[in-house]
Amino acid sequence: MKQYINVGLIGYGTVGKGVVKILEENKKIALRKVGKPIRVKSICDLRPIDRPELYVKNFRDIIKDPEIDLIVELIGGYEPARTILIEALKAGKNVVTANKAVLAKYWDQIFTTAQDSQTSIYYEASVGGVIPVVQGLSKGLASEEILEIKGILNGTTNFILSEMTKNGITYEDALKSAQSAGFAEADPSFDVNGIDTANKLAILSSLAWGGWIKAKDISVKGISDLDIEDVLITQNFGYDVKLIGSAEKTKDGVDLSVQPCLVNHDHAFATVENEYNAVMITGKDSDDVLFYGKGAGQQPAASSVVSDIINLSKFIVTNTAGIIPDVVYDKKIKIKVLPSGKSKASYYLRFAILDKHVLSKISGILGKFKVSIASLTQSDISDNGCAQIIIITHKTCRKNLEKALKQINATKSIVKSKVVKIKIEI
Amino acid sequence: MKQYINVGLIGYGTVGKGVVKILEENKKIALRKVGKPIRVKSICDLRPIDRPELYVKNFRDIIKDPEIDLIVELIGGYEPARTILIEALKAGKNVVTANKAVLAKYWDQIFTTAQDSQTSIYYEASVGGVIPVVQGLSKGLASEEILEIKGILNGTTNFILSEMTKNGITYEDALKSAQSAGFAEADPSFDVNGIDTANKLAILSSLAWGGWIKAKDISVKGISDLDIEDVLITQNFGYDVKLIGSAEKTKDGVDLSVQPCLVNHDHAFATVENEYNAVMITGKDSDDVLFYGKGAGQQPAASSVVSDIINLSKFIVTNTAGIIPDVVYDKKIKIKVLPSGKSKASYYLRFAILDKHVLSKISGILGKFKVSIASLTQSDISDNGCAQIIIITHKTCRKNLEKALKQINATKSIVKSKVVKIKIEI
Repeated sequence: MKQYINVGLIGYGTVGKGVVKILEENKKIALRKVGKPIRVKSICDLRPIDRPELYVKNFRDIIKDPEIDLIVELIGGYEPARTILIEALKAGKNVVTANKAVLAKYWDQIFTTAQDSQTSIYYEASVGGVIPVVQGLSKGLASEEILEIKGILNGTTNFILSEMTKNGITYEDALKSAQSAGFAEADPSFDVNGIDTANKLAILSSLAWGGWIKAKDISVKGISDLDIEDVLITQNFGYDVKLIGSAEKTKDGVDLSVQPCLVNHDHAFATVENEYNAVMITGKDSDDVLFYGKGAGQQPAASSVVSDIINLSKFIVTNTAGIIPDVVYDKKIKIKVLPSGKSKASYYLRFAILDKHVLSKISGILGKFKVSIASLTQSDISDNGCAQIIIITHKTCRKNLEKALKQINATKSIVKSKVVKIKIEI
Repeated sequence: MKQYINVGLIGYGTVGKGVVKILEENKKIALRKVGKPIRVKSICDLRPIDRPELYVKNFRDIIKDPEIDLIVELIGGYEPARTILIEALKAGKNVVTANKAVLAKYWDQIFTTAQDSQTSIYYEASVGGVIPVVQGLSKGLASEEILEIKGILNGTTNFILSEMTKNGITYEDALKSAQSAGFAEADPSFDVNGIDTANKLAILSSLAWGGWIKAKDISVKGISDLDIEDVLITQNFGYDVKLIGSAEKTKDGVDLSVQPCLVNHDHAFATVENEYNAVMITGKDSDDVLFYGKGAGQQPAASSVVSDIINLSKFIVTNTAGIIPDVVYDKKIKIKVLPSGKSKASYYLRFAILDKHVLSKISGILGKFKVSIASLTQSDISDNGCAQIIIITHKTCRKNLEKALKQINATKSIVKSKVVKIKIEI
């Protein structure tokens, strides 16, 4: 009879240290739920660590260790993370990971391997930090035909956008502020370019519809060229700017995008500030269900990993891990993705014009491409000779809008700079 | 090899009919997740039903049926619900229920029976309608030391309070409006008296802390004597009135209450309107995690029951149901409950006074009982000879406040009617 659940931890950075700390502090809670103590037996990291008695240099020594019941992968990135996950699963180990990048990219390989080797892989911390949305979607809403998933899924960008909004500062200054608060890395590109959000959206969408939705099928735009001027103008129109990952079932395929969007001040998403995340899942019978909590930071991420360790350990002590597939992934399900040009939405458009008489040209071109105007505001010519037109469109096909804007940008003496467009989400 | 998961449904009211409908409409989704079709084999109800081929008059015929894998109890109330659950579990059947009353009252008996007979009982729909908060708390936040649970847990009362707030109408008129919208029963007493919220809070608290917290240990006050005047006055102070179930870990025990409370307009709870529910769970490492969705209505409740059926069926097809206890209930854990008099909070107080010179008497008595004033507003004497004093207190011990108000109410020529007090929650 086993005395302990033995955990092998690979990756001892911020989250890894948090996991060890919570497992020690909350060991009574874990014991009550699992029935056996959970013990970190080995820790692998590139460099020697502050717990030399647990240190293992080569991750394969953890995978090969017959005493290890559960491997926690927290190194992030694609390699050697993918190799670790695949080798661990093939060796019959159950796995917990927080690695959205590797899951989104190797979904098929990872879950096929888990199914073939009758092992489980848990990954609640890969999406939404501490928010239990992976479970909420796959188990809590198990009966639902999912119609829509919309989420603020990246703590770094939400922190930056909150700083811009609250303090009226530029993207560059807000990024620096996020970096000094510990919510943005030195190289924040994956976050600010929207790639991280796309990975998380790919995971949630794959779960929702049972096939594999790839991150590369998602139309992605980040926040780095967002102008503070548009943040301030749209505030006055009653909106906040948020980076939204959105997946919407339409009759022609799933409409998938990551982009800065306007959300109405009245909507729950507008109250999601700083490092918080939120996910709204809409089912046919459930209607809207919202999950909200901290999406970044050591403790929330580590807490989510430890919950996975506890939940998986309950199966391990009863020898039932891997018998019930947690992700019901079916290779045969092909999910049709809507071409991004066919996506329909309302938009905020800002035209920096040189001449107040260009309005008829702008409305003429928009009309030609069937972009219909819901409201329009034109400012006076200012001292520097520049005026602005702000247009809110009715729902329009993205391709048509892009064609219209391309023509407006290319036509001489209409706009001083490229037209700004932001999707209106809610 | 089993061809089907056979379900026996006991109780064919609104939710029961919704369950049958969703199981039929979403049978492909269920099949994909479970691997076998789920079939409703028998339905028991007091009266014959519109599906005579499935009708069974005596619930014991369902419990005795060796082909039935899973019994769904949707009759509500204490008896025969308790008998059905206990006999079904003892007969080795796995059970899904939405019955908060019977769970809260017979927690010990039900979960002890399930553990002894190695069967599972799922009850996600018993709390928060479609919101997967039972799973969210017990699995999603499995690693957490839970510090606080606060929830808007009853759709009927929230609908009534929304009507009062939006339309400035009395409790009685708002109740009629809820009844005609289908969100209040002909006899709404369990909802409006706070009993239903207390049952749900008892379930969440028992899950959070591992012992059995009884509904009768919760201090409960309903909404039926809430004066529209106080709803309107507190709106101007920046608050909404919500019926909140609250469980807070303190060093002297868990502080448990259900009562109408004031929540700040800025707080997420203020955006929870009509039949929606919300639960905020605060853990030591997770911080605040919020769940939000429809708390009443046929489809949301039925959706939650069907999700339980699907999740439990995954265990049934792999012969693993009941091996992993879902509620880790330990008889030996005794949870200390804080006596309600020791509960500390800020309060809104309204004194209908006859004479503007009573302020010194009021503040004198409050001071004597150590109730400290944070702010005070006194209106002029109106034409009918009545003025009002509104006081917001600092955090104060409930017992002291009650003693002070008792003395004020009893002293001649201070107040025209009993002092109104409402807890300020957030």
